[in-house]
Amino acid sequence: MKIESIDFFYISMPVVTDAGDGSQDALLVRVRSGNIEAWGECEASPLTSIASSIAPMSHGACRPVSAQVLGEDVSSPKDIARLAATIQWNCMDLLQAAHTWSGIEIALWDLLGKKESVPVYKLLGYDKAYPKVPYASQLFGDTAQETLTLCKAARDAGYRAVKCGWGPFGRGTLKDDADHLQAAREGIGKDGTLLIDAGQIFGEDVDAAAARLPALEGVNATWFEEPFNGSAYEAYGALAKRSRTVRLAGGEAAHNTFMARHTIDYGGVGFIQIDCGRIGGIGPAKQVADYAVGKGITYVNHTFTTHLALCASIQPFAGLKDHKICEYPVRPQPMAWEMCKTHIAPNAQGEIVVPEAPGLGIEIDLAAVKKYLIDAEIKVGGKVLYKTPSLA
Amino acid sequence: MKIESIDFFYISMPVVTDAGDGSQDALLVRVRSGNIEAWGECEASPLTSIASSIAPMSHGACRPVSAQVLGEDVSSPKDIARLAATIQWNCMDLLQAAHTWSGIEIALWDLLGKKESVPVYKLLGYDKAYPKVPYASQLFGDTAQETLTLCKAARDAGYRAVKCGWGPFGRGTLKDDADHLQAAREGIGKDGTLLIDAGQIFGEDVDAAAARLPALEGVNATWFEEPFNGSAYEAYGALAKRSRTVRLAGGEAAHNTFMARHTIDYGGVGFIQIDCGRIGGIGPAKQVADYAVGKGITYVNHTFTTHLALCASIQPFAGLKDHKICEYPVRPQPMAWEMCKTHIAPNAQGEIVVPEAPGLGIEIDLAAVKKYLIDAEIKVGGKVLYKTPSLA
Repeated sequence: MKIESIDFFYISMPVVTDAGDGSQDALLVRVRSGNIEAWGECEASPLTSIASSIAPMSHGACRPVSAQVLGEDVSSPKDIARLAATIQWNCMDLLQAAHTWSGIEIALWDLLGKKESVPVYKLLGYDKAYPKVPYASQLFGDTAQETLTLCKAARDAGYRAVKCGWGPFGRGTLKDDADHLQAAREGIGKDGTLLIDAGQIFGEDVDAAAARLPALEGVNATWFEEPFNGSAYEAYGALAKRSRTVRLAGGEAAHNTFMARHTIDYGGVGFIQIDCGRIGGIGPAKQVADYAVGKGITYVNHTFTTHLALCASIQPFAGLKDHKICEYPVRPQPMAWEMCKTHIAPNAQGEIVVPEAPGLGIEIDLAAVKKYLIDAEIKVGGKVLYKTPSLA
Repeated sequence: MKIESIDFFYISMPVVTDAGDGSQDALLVRVRSGNIEAWGECEASPLTSIASSIAPMSHGACRPVSAQVLGEDVSSPKDIARLAATIQWNCMDLLQAAHTWSGIEIALWDLLGKKESVPVYKLLGYDKAYPKVPYASQLFGDTAQETLTLCKAARDAGYRAVKCGWGPFGRGTLKDDADHLQAAREGIGKDGTLLIDAGQIFGEDVDAAAARLPALEGVNATWFEEPFNGSAYEAYGALAKRSRTVRLAGGEAAHNTFMARHTIDYGGVGFIQIDCGRIGGIGPAKQVADYAVGKGITYVNHTFTTHLALCASIQPFAGLKDHKICEYPVRPQPMAWEMCKTHIAPNAQGEIVVPEAPGLGIEIDLAAVKKYLIDAEIKVGGKVLYKTPSLA
């Protein structure tokens, strides 16, 4: 299948706030070959990724992303891997390229699955997609009482796992943090899975993070996410050694498989969190899942936008029965919800499973995309290099 | 000093080829405060960095770069560090931000130096700028005979150090590589410093790279640069252990100080190569230089564009007397040469030293910038977010 077109669609809520809510905008990628249309999604800064897709070449190792893929043949997973290697080489000095390529790569898997009439996870070598336990990802409340209320609400909504993060955590006293943790545990109940996200608040300060371990252990937290800067492997490694029952989680910023491996090997995490929209798509994410299995640690998706991104993010570990926890966008912005006709909803057991339809199995709602579509244009030297494409 | 404006100028040769020549285009940054005008430069993909400077916010951790700096006060090095921390936090999910911020950060040092009437290296805490030995960075010839001719030419031009890289190296037999290495040594003479750059050709294949060690040792090569992918720390570390006299060099892609430290600590390099236009500017580069000193290894700049970028790249290790080797763009494209009125030329001893003038001490040739200026425009939702600014 020859890749005939690659189109980027920048959609956004009319108003974007500085809340830590990644579902306020999205960059969709549409790839066409013959009569097949496939979709993918890049994570973060749509305009920057669009620019990198068509930016004039700077030199041999800094070429525009889309031109490396257009016109190429994609007939098997090997072709996607070949193109990934081309991107790595030809876009070596184009930092944004990993994010941009991620969306294209996801669309290529969707394309291949549609052509072969199989779900993507089967193309990845899995026989079966196992159900996952979605966790409700939310911010800590401003007060412990608020945290209690939020966690109770998540439990009442049927969630068996809840993640509390950011907000006041790590910014006040140890007692403040302990109070929030107690409240979170009380809110979700004894049997709920409690996940804590520090949002990099401790920088590289291992002692400050370690001081929270007793309280985390006291509430039986399953993981302690991003206590440090995502690249501070030494700090992760040191903290991992000091923790008894709570495992570290991290890796969401990995924009290649090396970074994920380092988070595992040097950082000693027990949960490796991969965003398919950043790491280069589904292929490298699957490599990380395989690596995690080999190392006896758990793979988790990182997703905070649409159900298209969610579906893509589950494929790499869909067939791993024991890797059950799954990030699930709980209160996405209307844009992020409406742009997909297909949604991955929890079943009666509160679990989710990816569609069995060909490719990613997510139907795009073109009318909704149109509603939120941002008109953009990039001109260089008098030539229009990008213009929001037609949805037709 | 309040930052009143940040302007990006994209300049380029009329024709850009896929040669590995980073001097074919450049992204200049002009910062103004009061009556002071300062300049910096970002490395690679001008259009993408411009887009990231003004891209609409995606969420709280993905904000446009320039808005984090505009209107801020910069009166001391601490203010630059404060802004760097802001960028790291507010642009956490904007991958390109590190490259974009690098050019702004360099301009801020130029600004501060001009305000204080001191060269930047003094602001960094150095008393004196020591001369460096520029190395001629060139590609291997297609044949060993060509490599010989090229290295002879560099020696005749007065270079005491030569780097040969990329081209056929690592792509043919061991014998082919050995022939090229012998030719290079013969060309630059017994006393010349010979540096070899494998251009990541071995991926992660430690054995393939190690097979070249005897030939490298045989010609007394000083360093073996980027045998592997820049993030393949494990491979670097394994090769470093197998090498006796030849030290590894790497780090040019580091877009934060963590990556540089990992290249040193996990990768075991003997030379850490930092590009100020990528790592976040002069401040983090100086941190890496300090770290290198502490670890007993050598800091080297990575520069392949203009003398503005060259001058910025030398500041972080200007005061390190024993860190003498310095990358020097030997045959930059006319654009890269002409845009600076001030050039850092080798003295009678074949050594170079940064200007003693305030700031970076590089005067920009506005007429030349105008000659190579690329007209670009970015419109989002009908609003022009970027338009090539006036040089006046």
